[in-house]
Amino acid sequence: MRSFAAVEAFRGAENLIRVVGHRGARGILPENSMIGFEFALETGAHLLEFDVVLTGDEIPVITHNHHLHAPTFRGADGQFLTSEPRIRTLTCAEIQRYEIGRLDGASAYGQRFPDQAQLDGVTVPRLAELLNLVSQPQHSAAYLMLELKSDPDLAGDAAHRQRLVDIIIQEVRTTGLTNRVLLHSFDWNLLAECQRQAPDIPASYLTQLPENADDVGEASSKAISPDFTGQESRIPDLVSEAGGRLWCPHVNDVSKQSVQRARELGLCVAVWTVNTSADINRMIDFGVDAIVSDYPGRVQRILSDRGLYWLDAGDASRPGAKEKDQKKMPLAAQQ
Amino acid sequence: MRSFAAVEAFRGAENLIRVVGHRGARGILPENSMIGFEFALETGAHLLEFDVVLTGDEIPVITHNHHLHAPTFRGADGQFLTSEPRIRTLTCAEIQRYEIGRLDGASAYGQRFPDQAQLDGVTVPRLAELLNLVSQPQHSAAYLMLELKSDPDLAGDAAHRQRLVDIIIQEVRTTGLTNRVLLHSFDWNLLAECQRQAPDIPASYLTQLPENADDVGEASSKAISPDFTGQESRIPDLVSEAGGRLWCPHVNDVSKQSVQRARELGLCVAVWTVNTSADINRMIDFGVDAIVSDYPGRVQRILSDRGLYWLDAGDASRPGAKEKDQKKMPLAAQQ
Repeated sequence: MRSFAAVEAFRGAENLIRVVGHRGARGILPENSMIGFEFALETGAHLLEFDVVLTGDEIPVITHNHHLHAPTFRGADGQFLTSEPRIRTLTCAEIQRYEIGRLDGASAYGQRFPDQAQLDGVTVPRLAELLNLVSQPQHSAAYLMLELKSDPDLAGDAAHRQRLVDIIIQEVRTTGLTNRVLLHSFDWNLLAECQRQAPDIPASYLTQLPENADDVGEASSKAISPDFTGQESRIPDLVSEAGGRLWCPHVNDVSKQSVQRARELGLCVAVWTVNTSADINRMIDFGVDAIVSDYPGRVQRILSDRGLYWLDAGDASRPGAKEKDQKKMPLAAQQ
Repeated sequence: MRSFAAVEAFRGAENLIRVVGHRGARGILPENSMIGFEFALETGAHLLEFDVVLTGDEIPVITHNHHLHAPTFRGADGQFLTSEPRIRTLTCAEIQRYEIGRLDGASAYGQRFPDQAQLDGVTVPRLAELLNLVSQPQHSAAYLMLELKSDPDLAGDAAHRQRLVDIIIQEVRTTGLTNRVLLHSFDWNLLAECQRQAPDIPASYLTQLPENADDVGEASSKAISPDFTGQESRIPDLVSEAGGRLWCPHVNDVSKQSVQRARELGLCVAVWTVNTSADINRMIDFGVDAIVSDYPGRVQRILSDRGLYWLDAGDASRPGAKEKDQKKMPLAAQQ
């Protein structure tokens, strides 16, 4: 089986579990924002998860929903939106007039992230902005889990699917980042199209079982997921058969057995969205490869306490890296 | 009474309460680290609180205790310290060989900050590094609450006090930041010396009542505080009589009445360390000028939810700033 650098970047090892910043670091900074991505990159969460949607003028932008998300989007009057216009009815320039740096504390969604910094002047980034950031030399260790969001209204439209994938892949190729990206989705038809157009970029398969609750205030992905009824225990096999290199189950849908089966198939297992200490510890016990979290610092902290690593030995910011070894304590201070 | 820009920067107004990043943003990033200060500055916490101690070779460095703090200092072996050598027995170069980017989760202190990012390669900064950062044009809105830590062993040593204040003030003057700094301490003798040497830099008086508990795992400041016995209700008056411009009480020691009295005296009230939602809301209700917190984002979030501001109208990152007003929503999106 062909090996991909981007897959290996997400693969764990003995005493090594990866940390993936979910929408940057949603618990700390506005989701899917450049300042959030920069924060994650600068704090040792070099693996970034984020969402890409196409605007009316066919520009890939980084935002989670197919509509402007009322609890996070504010208009020129500084107020959170009361209606949610669809992204594809707006141009990129129109979308970038909204502010996305705060959360509406009156909403159920906003209440989930009480520590997020509240900023003004933050707008929806283009995909190209993040690709440009990551292509800078200081971010050579960064890898991208690029989630393609398929519009449920256009789920059956093969031409739309083809166009969406084509535009996104072109942007990735333009910045020379093909070996630093995973194409990631709940929509397996979209992932098949990705594999057809870009066999050189690995595909990452998201799954969520319909019987488990959606995260509060999130647009559900269940409508565009395949129907796993009767095959729940075969999901890792289905991912592998579909050509997937990563399996990305919801934190409530995974078991030690399913992680083990995925491993036998050579899949890399990255679980989302793992935010509580209990869930983080459970995922470590299951031996997953990577933990996708809104609180990368919280995951690092638990890994650190358990004597585990999250960065490669060659990474300058991992202890034991060469530079560190040259630092010796003064004897007087070691008393 | 003479007006100081640095005092006004900490003063609240109608619908405006300031947010001060405590040791940078200790809840999110390693305390008293450059990366923590940068994070605070970039996320709208332009007012920074931090601690300055003198090394054996008389260099002011930014760290909280007079000894290396075992739950946050690691040696060349990557392990947290088991003994705590005193800062003044070490040179600056020796101190900077230790890592301060992680917290020991086995310690009571470490358990207080479960979300702090765990970093390697982070070391104790010199005061000069922070002064240089803040003197860059993009940080012209930043103001510093510079806490001078007096060594309890040398509390009676006037020559030591004089030397400590002299060295720190020289560094502030060298970077041209005299109008952006508050000299802040629990040690009122030290603050008297500050006022003697630098009447052009305002003094900020910290207080903590002996009857309330210390924060878990913190070196107590009670030993070097004045004795307020029998004068608890006159503390704002005592601060004013001592020439203080700010009064900085512990969050457990303040009341609506004492805030009001401080205001009558023209003092600015900045309360520390305000981390829980309940405490943040209580301080807002008391009408304090500024909230010093390990979680500046959490404070911003509560202020935002309550329709309050934390930045001046002229600040580019406050809504209503000129640049923002030019952004108009497309009509189609306002439906």
